[in-house]
Amino acid sequence: MTKKYVYDFSEGNKDMRNLLGGKGANLAEMTCLGLSVPPGFTITTEACNRYYDENESLWPELLEEVEMHIKETEKKLNKKFSDENNPLLFSVRSGAVFSMPGMMDTILNLGLNDKSVIGLANSTKNERFAYDSYRRFIQMFADVAMDIPKVHFETALEQMKEDKKVDLDNELTAEDLKKLVDIYKKIYVEETGNEFPQDPMVQLKYSIEAVFRSWNNPRANIYRKLHNIDNTLGTAVNIQSMVFGNMGDTSGTGVAFSRNPATGENKLFGEYLINAQGEDVVAGIRTPEHISTLHDVMPEVYDEFLNTANKLEEHYKDMQDLEFTIENGKLFILQTRSGKRTTQAALNIVVDLVNEGLISKEEAVMRIEPDSLNQLLHPNFDPEQLKNAQLISKGLAASPGAASGKIYFNAEEAVEAAKKGDKVILVRQETSPEDIEGMISAEGILTARGGMTSHAAVVARGMGKCCVAGASEVVVDEAQKIMRSNNFVLTEGDVISLNGNDGSIYFGNVDKVEPELSGNFEIFMNWVDEIRNMKVRTNADSPKDAKQALKFGAEGIGLTRTEHMFFSDERIPAVREMILSKTTEQRKIALDKIRPMQENDFYEIYKVMEDLPVTIRLLDPPLHEFLPTNKKDIEKLAKDMGLSYDEVNDTVQDLHEVNPMLGHRGCRLAVTYPEIYRMQARAIITAALRHKKEGRNIVPEIMIPLVGDVKELIYVKNEIIDEINTIFEEYSDKVEYLIGTMIEVPRAALLADEIAEEADFFSFGTNDMTQMAFGFSRDDAGKFLGEYEEKDIYPTSPFESLDQKGVGKLLEIAVEKGLKTNKNLHLGICGEHGGEPSSIEFCYNLGLDYVSCSPYRVPIARLTLAQATVKKQNIDTGHIDK
Amino acid sequence: MTKKYVYDFSEGNKDMRNLLGGKGANLAEMTCLGLSVPPGFTITTEACNRYYDENESLWPELLEEVEMHIKETEKKLNKKFSDENNPLLFSVRSGAVFSMPGMMDTILNLGLNDKSVIGLANSTKNERFAYDSYRRFIQMFADVAMDIPKVHFETALEQMKEDKKVDLDNELTAEDLKKLVDIYKKIYVEETGNEFPQDPMVQLKYSIEAVFRSWNNPRANIYRKLHNIDNTLGTAVNIQSMVFGNMGDTSGTGVAFSRNPATGENKLFGEYLINAQGEDVVAGIRTPEHISTLHDVMPEVYDEFLNTANKLEEHYKDMQDLEFTIENGKLFILQTRSGKRTTQAALNIVVDLVNEGLISKEEAVMRIEPDSLNQLLHPNFDPEQLKNAQLISKGLAASPGAASGKIYFNAEEAVEAAKKGDKVILVRQETSPEDIEGMISAEGILTARGGMTSHAAVVARGMGKCCVAGASEVVVDEAQKIMRSNNFVLTEGDVISLNGNDGSIYFGNVDKVEPELSGNFEIFMNWVDEIRNMKVRTNADSPKDAKQALKFGAEGIGLTRTEHMFFSDERIPAVREMILSKTTEQRKIALDKIRPMQENDFYEIYKVMEDLPVTIRLLDPPLHEFLPTNKKDIEKLAKDMGLSYDEVNDTVQDLHEVNPMLGHRGCRLAVTYPEIYRMQARAIITAALRHKKEGRNIVPEIMIPLVGDVKELIYVKNEIIDEINTIFEEYSDKVEYLIGTMIEVPRAALLADEIAEEADFFSFGTNDMTQMAFGFSRDDAGKFLGEYEEKDIYPTSPFESLDQKGVGKLLEIAVEKGLKTNKNLHLGICGEHGGEPSSIEFCYNLGLDYVSCSPYRVPIARLTLAQATVKKQNIDTGHIDK
Repeated sequence: MTKKYVYDFSEGNKDMRNLLGGKGANLAEMTCLGLSVPPGFTITTEACNRYYDENESLWPELLEEVEMHIKETEKKLNKKFSDENNPLLFSVRSGAVFSMPGMMDTILNLGLNDKSVIGLANSTKNERFAYDSYRRFIQMFADVAMDIPKVHFETALEQMKEDKKVDLDNELTAEDLKKLVDIYKKIYVEETGNEFPQDPMVQLKYSIEAVFRSWNNPRANIYRKLHNIDNTLGTAVNIQSMVFGNMGDTSGTGVAFSRNPATGENKLFGEYLINAQGEDVVAGIRTPEHISTLHDVMPEVYDEFLNTANKLEEHYKDMQDLEFTIENGKLFILQTRSGKRTTQAALNIVVDLVNEGLISKEEAVMRIEPDSLNQLLHPNFDPEQLKNAQLISKGLAASPGAASGKIYFNAEEAVEAAKKGDKVILVRQETSPEDIEGMISAEGILTARGGMTSHAAVVARGMGKCCVAGASEVVVDEAQKIMRSNNFVLTEGDVISLNGNDGSIYFGNVDKVEPELSGNFEIFMNWVDEIRNMKVRTNADSPKDAKQALKFGAEGIGLTRTEHMFFSDERIPAVREMILSKTTEQRKIALDKIRPMQENDFYEIYKVMEDLPVTIRLLDPPLHEFLPTNKKDIEKLAKDMGLSYDEVNDTVQDLHEVNPMLGHRGCRLAVTYPEIYRMQARAIITAALRHKKEGRNIVPEIMIPLVGDVKELIYVKNEIIDEINTIFEEYSDKVEYLIGTMIEVPRAALLADEIAEEADFFSFGTNDMTQMAFGFSRDDAGKFLGEYEEKDIYPTSPFESLDQKGVGKLLEIAVEKGLKTNKNLHLGICGEHGGEPSSIEFCYNLGLDYVSCSPYRVPIARLTLAQATVKKQNIDTGHIDK
Repeated sequence: MTKKYVYDFSEGNKDMRNLLGGKGANLAEMTCLGLSVPPGFTITTEACNRYYDENESLWPELLEEVEMHIKETEKKLNKKFSDENNPLLFSVRSGAVFSMPGMMDTILNLGLNDKSVIGLANSTKNERFAYDSYRRFIQMFADVAMDIPKVHFETALEQMKEDKKVDLDNELTAEDLKKLVDIYKKIYVEETGNEFPQDPMVQLKYSIEAVFRSWNNPRANIYRKLHNIDNTLGTAVNIQSMVFGNMGDTSGTGVAFSRNPATGENKLFGEYLINAQGEDVVAGIRTPEHISTLHDVMPEVYDEFLNTANKLEEHYKDMQDLEFTIENGKLFILQTRSGKRTTQAALNIVVDLVNEGLISKEEAVMRIEPDSLNQLLHPNFDPEQLKNAQLISKGLAASPGAASGKIYFNAEEAVEAAKKGDKVILVRQETSPEDIEGMISAEGILTARGGMTSHAAVVARGMGKCCVAGASEVVVDEAQKIMRSNNFVLTEGDVISLNGNDGSIYFGNVDKVEPELSGNFEIFMNWVDEIRNMKVRTNADSPKDAKQALKFGAEGIGLTRTEHMFFSDERIPAVREMILSKTTEQRKIALDKIRPMQENDFYEIYKVMEDLPVTIRLLDPPLHEFLPTNKKDIEKLAKDMGLSYDEVNDTVQDLHEVNPMLGHRGCRLAVTYPEIYRMQARAIITAALRHKKEGRNIVPEIMIPLVGDVKELIYVKNEIIDEINTIFEEYSDKVEYLIGTMIEVPRAALLADEIAEEADFFSFGTNDMTQMAFGFSRDDAGKFLGEYEEKDIYPTSPFESLDQKGVGKLLEIAVEKGLKTNKNLHLGICGEHGGEPSSIEFCYNLGLDYVSCSPYRVPIARLTLAQATVKKQNIDTGHIDK
């Protein structure tokens, strides 16, 4: 039996999305539910993959199968494809497994040609409509299938409107449009060297190929990279009989959500346009009406739509994003899918759905993308500052959040500026898929045109990025790089602030304050913690960070970097004195100046954390990081220290390293200068003793970085223990403490069995381990990692997402070997991967005791771990396919 | 039963060296052979280890056991320990498992005190001898057991000689010596606060402790480090009844080898002194007589000694190094051991021994330390230049070789200068164990005093270092740092040349030429190759290197570094033009200039290697290595290139890397600029095609460096294959070729199964892998690795000797995984470890196909592999304990 590559909508269902794509599966599901879906069929994602296997060509059997399904559709509708009298026309749409808005190309009105256009005119008794459809089709086909720039057609259209002295497209007459069709066909000949194809099967063949090709267009690739979608999934092609929203005032088209995607409110939310085709709504050229007004215009249609939305929501147990068309007063549903939403909305919706009894807590937890919590955690504008902020204008609150930055008027320059470290606001007339990289780089996005479902709004919400859209008072001149509104004239590099919660645009920077996390967030995170069974700690170097992390649910500190405390103005002189010391005695004197300050740091951090564990990493960076490098600063330092320029400069030169990342740092410092770690150990322990006196029981966890051999650990540990025992004698008092090690040097992972015998805990430093395992430094890899991602050698940067195959293998070895010799070994991760969902899940499956991440990542880690738990339980009980 | 810690000489044998030390085992063996050995006993190495376990104190049971053995010795000799009439005296000597000349301390005449000295005088009828022995004992005991500087005693002796107006020690009378004993005892009281111990058991206890302590003195530790001797072996203590070489003109003492240790000639070789104790010979204060003259002085003793030497040599099947004493015409053998020898001598001896039927070829191969071959391989002076060289003086040809360098007069400054990269000649009056680090650093050693068995001579031969000793015409003023001879007055930093083969000392530098390797070397290396079953290739970047390596027996090239070819004056402009290119097209134009030169490089190398394999590594270093960094050079380059300073400087700044070792290099260059590797692949293949036209069949092995992922390898490989296929079409001709990869990035080792599917061969780049696995860079680790070695964390630098536990584990993983997916995978190593014996042996046991090393290490690698083969066969057949 030959493989089936084409499925009628009546042959599929929602669970076949891998084969039919999301759109196709849902069209099939709705067809089977008996909803009013225009008939059609879907070419499978397998066909797409075969298309690439066949060197991007369609094989004859596929077209035969398509023709068979066309015939079936003709039967159902009693129309003939591209007929001269009553023509059946098709839309051709892509349909990937995961929804990729704006990424893929669509062709409408396929089947129109010089003859069938007359048939359409006759059958609909609307010649103007027929020619309008034909000219739209020519343009879309030319654009999508033939790569002819739209501007040619748009210029011709504008010219025609000018000639006819009309403002709007729909003021052009059937005659005008006929002429325009001829002009369009001429443009087509000029651009391609061929006549516009009249054979509808040729039109269809080219269109199918265009959809398949669009799977690999650069925008789609970027989107997939951003959302970690597998490149080999392929796209399906949905071929659906056309219905027309542009047949007059009883026709229309719209998009709507079954609940509010910005807030989650359980109320229809959407827009429609009368006498328009679908792309008119999303393109944002005409400003659409709110869906609620449809109730007044066509009450029956509205009710049917509302019922359909509710039915679908109940069926899918989730908020739905629907596309519909009204053709001569009849409602058709063209698409349904789980709607994209803000995280706030998502949270509110899942809490509601649980309360409505539609889903379980576990299902609720699985519904929120961990990274999306970012949207809720980040600061809002300081209300006090906001009182005095100068309002430039207001637009639509398209995606919540607060952002300030320098304005840039195109994606490339926004990307460049962000690379340089600037905070950037991307300001555009309206955005298009070409802007996607600029949007990724920006803190926030401002558009002058487009509604709540415009490209900018949809994509920004998906990214959790602040967006103000459709700010109609703002004039954006992209070419001249000027933005005007009221009395403001802003140019590239000027700073503005956007409030994505209410659409306000402010001049200059506005400070931000921490969000209140309560209500549904709290309810939801409680469910998360009920389900989760692995700890989350935080990386915090100050009481302030520690407090923030506690608020976000941290259950301890997994990493306190002591060196950050060395840089403050009142400390750096003593640090430098220590480094410039010629003898151990001099060094000890300098260290004695730093010690009380360090002791106080630890005292304060313990105080915040109370009885939660606190892991303190001893000095890690090479000493030259604390010294100046340019002549002027060296001179100043020499003067401050009462040394000659040469003395200081000699030390600077002596400490210079060819590869500082692979240099004299971490515990290597303590092998040569044990007094440094002794001082830190003293500060750590005396701070704990102070708390003990005050009745609190602190058990410090002392962490030794960059260990590569058990003998190195033993040497450093013995120095520390010796110092601690001296303290205990001096104070005639004791505290418990742990001594553990970072596992970040690859050799340490390979010899973890030996090291574990001397360590109370391991904490995986996956930042350094990634650098060493790959052999490229984070500071330098930027020069080539982009190319590696583009060439698909490393699909994502291993600094963002843990390299599970390589670095992960080292972790596996270390865990296995470590537990073999030390059953009580505590295991954690404190590299930045500890806050990245896929890496966290890996750590969960590896059996670590905790992940530690920056305070803002703590809720994300909690949610990821809850999801990992659910997945594992379901895998264990066979509920979910692996 | 309590453990036995003391063995009488009659209780042991030569196979008990682990327990009794080398010296003790051999004394036992000789005793059992019936040779004339003064009776005595040995305290075991286990006692030494227990001494350290007991916090450096002797436990009572040990002393009881010692006393029991003293009593037995008393019975044998019919003397009493420290008796007032006929006293038994002892020597106390250390005896480690491996011979450590000059490292351990010795005490003679133990048991003398104010009473037994009179007994000795009476029993020997020689009062002068008795008090001379007593004063020597006090000085030795004070020095070795009590750490009292010898200079105190020497000053007193000189004073006495001055007072008595005599020149030589033996001109002092018994009365003089009696007074000297009183003075020495006063010095002892002044320095220690205690009386000189009169109780012989106290003397013995302190002496045993001193021997045990000396195991851990810094000199001993350095020696062990240099010779890779385990620190935990411990030393035995040999307590032997004294015989006296200083009892008059029928007494004497000497050291001799059963064959010539410099040439291997089968003839007694050694020195003796009449009326002297052992330390007089090795200290080089009096110039000793050649052993052959003993034949005239005491013919019977000479014959007995000759017979003994022959007997021992036959028994041990090796050249022996003997110490003997003649007491009143009676010969005593005090020590025998396998003698240290020059490599040339060692080779000649083993070839002779095989020819004499005493040992097998396999045994012969096991007898030569691979590293020692260095001595034979290195250049001698150019005979032409030698004709015009200015001879300063001549000394003894103490250790062969040729060396030139700047003279330094003490070890510290020699070490410093060598660290700065200077070639150094250490010039000393005579050397002592304190000079050992200076000797390691030096190219050659010159001493004014001391014979062929002086410290300098023995140690230099052990190190394979050129040494001219006993250059009596040369006056060395160490304090003023002046060396005078004839009309030459040389000061620190002046350059001299030493010929260790004939003892000549030349002014200035003399060029060196390659040695002739023939005769016994050739015979021996043929045996090596008969036994060896793994290949040795060489790392060679030029036809000259390749020729040298072939001469040394290389069986192919394992690494040709193409970048070295980029630096020559006529090429670097094109290389820089390539780097400064703004477009791919510009870059290709510049590369086209380099290509013909590279093609010719490869053509010439193939020509030298004929049908042997040649592995060529594609460009590896980061591009900035080819650009200047200082302003002046950048200006010049800009001018040469017709660019502005800023243009060039921008590129220099752009290419700057924080961690160049972890930067944009290796195949990463080819991912961003595939045209570079394409150019190199073209040069490699077209050069092979040229040879094919000329009738030679070259199969180039193209090696891709720094691969971290199979996709990276595939990308780069595809570019290369595409280029090669283009060449094949252009030339309408083909050659076979291999494409393989360096395994040097740890991740590559972990994912070797995937990578092996795309590679014809793996070559382990253990230099980079060591840096990445340990996380320290070779350039920077110098700052702390010394401390790590001292603190015994890394006993040897992992850059010198492969870290078998860590890096070796990665190699193991890579080999196992690689062969799993690619049974035909070729495996080799091209890091510098490929020339280091212990690393080579590891690679052998790992099952690699070849090691590749620098040309001069090729014979060493061949020998190491032969030895590894013998070891493995013996282990397999159970002949050698593991």
